[in-house]
Amino acid sequence: MTRAASGIERLSLNQITTKAWSLAEAVQGCADAGIPAIGLWRDKVAEAGGADRAAVLVRTAGLTVSSLCRGGFFTAPTGTAARTAALDDNRRAIEEAAVLGTGTLVLVCGGLPDGSRDLAAARGRVRDALAELAPFAGDHGVRLAVEPLHPMFCADRAVVSTLGQALDLAEEFPAGQVGVVVDSYHVWWDPELYRQIARAGERIAAYQLCDWTLPLPADALLGRGQVGDGVIDFRALDRAVSAAGYTGWVEVELFNQQVWDTPGEVTLRRLIERHLAHVAPPPG
Amino acid sequence: MTRAASGIERLSLNQITTKAWSLAEAVQGCADAGIPAIGLWRDKVAEAGGADRAAVLVRTAGLTVSSLCRGGFFTAPTGTAARTAALDDNRRAIEEAAVLGTGTLVLVCGGLPDGSRDLAAARGRVRDALAELAPFAGDHGVRLAVEPLHPMFCADRAVVSTLGQALDLAEEFPAGQVGVVVDSYHVWWDPELYRQIARAGERIAAYQLCDWTLPLPADALLGRGQVGDGVIDFRALDRAVSAAGYTGWVEVELFNQQVWDTPGEVTLRRLIERHLAHVAPPPG
Repeated sequence: MTRAASGIERLSLNQITTKAWSLAEAVQGCADAGIPAIGLWRDKVAEAGGADRAAVLVRTAGLTVSSLCRGGFFTAPTGTAARTAALDDNRRAIEEAAVLGTGTLVLVCGGLPDGSRDLAAARGRVRDALAELAPFAGDHGVRLAVEPLHPMFCADRAVVSTLGQALDLAEEFPAGQVGVVVDSYHVWWDPELYRQIARAGERIAAYQLCDWTLPLPADALLGRGQVGDGVIDFRALDRAVSAAGYTGWVEVELFNQQVWDTPGEVTLRRLIERHLAHVAPPPG
Repeated sequence: MTRAASGIERLSLNQITTKAWSLAEAVQGCADAGIPAIGLWRDKVAEAGGADRAAVLVRTAGLTVSSLCRGGFFTAPTGTAARTAALDDNRRAIEEAAVLGTGTLVLVCGGLPDGSRDLAAARGRVRDALAELAPFAGDHGVRLAVEPLHPMFCADRAVVSTLGQALDLAEEFPAGQVGVVVDSYHVWWDPELYRQIARAGERIAAYQLCDWTLPLPADALLGRGQVGDGVIDFRALDRAVSAAGYTGWVEVELFNQQVWDTPGEVTLRRLIERHLAHVAPPPG
């Protein structure tokens, strides 16, 4: 195990944050910086030669894989080839997660199919997909982590829009098979947030952080700020997630062109500084 | 009264949709097109010489004022000059609404004050502001219409983010004093939407339409599409709002640079076409 510096024992780098880095570079960067865990992306795992090779790279460096991003995108109409392909791809993602030694597969569930206005039907197909995948995930020791995405992504990326809705879905299945993601960027605005975090309890499978900064960028996907640069009260969020019983990894996931244009080492130093200032329990 | 053409008896032009037009031009445009009502904006009312003159203009053309936009922006910390100024301005807005003969003042409640991360406190101040303004509004025959804005505007424009939250606020006051706005753009994604519309009942003070189109524009404020251009199921929404007992105006409110660059007459023709195709009950 990489020995984490004090205060960052639970910090994990979600590797999209260092998008320019290969998996090997990101793993080395974490080891050098003393960050003990990494959240992997499937495209980077594939580039590194597949899950087996990636698992060796991570293990050799003494890191833990906090999660695999991502499955999901399974809202295509039932009976279509797109639907079958999505479910097959999700099974492969579950197998990869198992090989990588992470118990958490993050699901971005998918938006409305092209030309559709039937949100209720798309949401129903998310439920159906979970029903089909959950036992398979359980058999592999992997938990499906349903991520509610900010409602501005409802049409094109995820029809699961609130933590409450994600929990309604998850609770239809055993807690060991289906959990939820609490990502600060997606949920911070929700008037029901603290009630739903308390409700979530052991369903919290992943906890991801970045900040809401203004103005929104031209590409709405890329607006995620460094922790501390925006309006989110991370101390309050952390208290709530901890009170719900979560003791797992705290992943930092930044979709942000400026961050991506910054050398990875600099980004990792900033992650650590921000984590100590805004997230880690104050010493003493 | 302007005699509305068949199928558009409840259609109202929110005048931001024809932003390039003066109030007099918008009123004339509606009268010419057979649109029987108009939602006014305070800046346009001021440019037209104030509420008294604007009221005469509208009445002479035989139109009804469906609502006045807008009050709100009262989340500044208690005890500050900004807070006092905001409440004073809201009282003036209530008086203007009364003079204009509309019973509905739309409230965009305001975002987080600069530098604040205390969302709960800002939300508490919305409640306090309503408590201060509601009786004054009631005395003027005006209902405060709390508009939940899409969560992507939570930080900078409205800490009221869902219909359920707006109703929690409104229900603390008499129904004649505080209601809510159902605006398709802001609420379409909400998994609780249909339950909350049914709950809203007589609290629905205004009903506004535009569509959610992709991609989001560089300026997130300006992404509102013509009814029918996006992903919202207007028939389903309309059935729900009608089932809740709402029989009032259906305002079309488009923040959209392309629409603003289109001649007003063309925009109004398109509004009518879209209303007949996607909103008005099919004939027979």
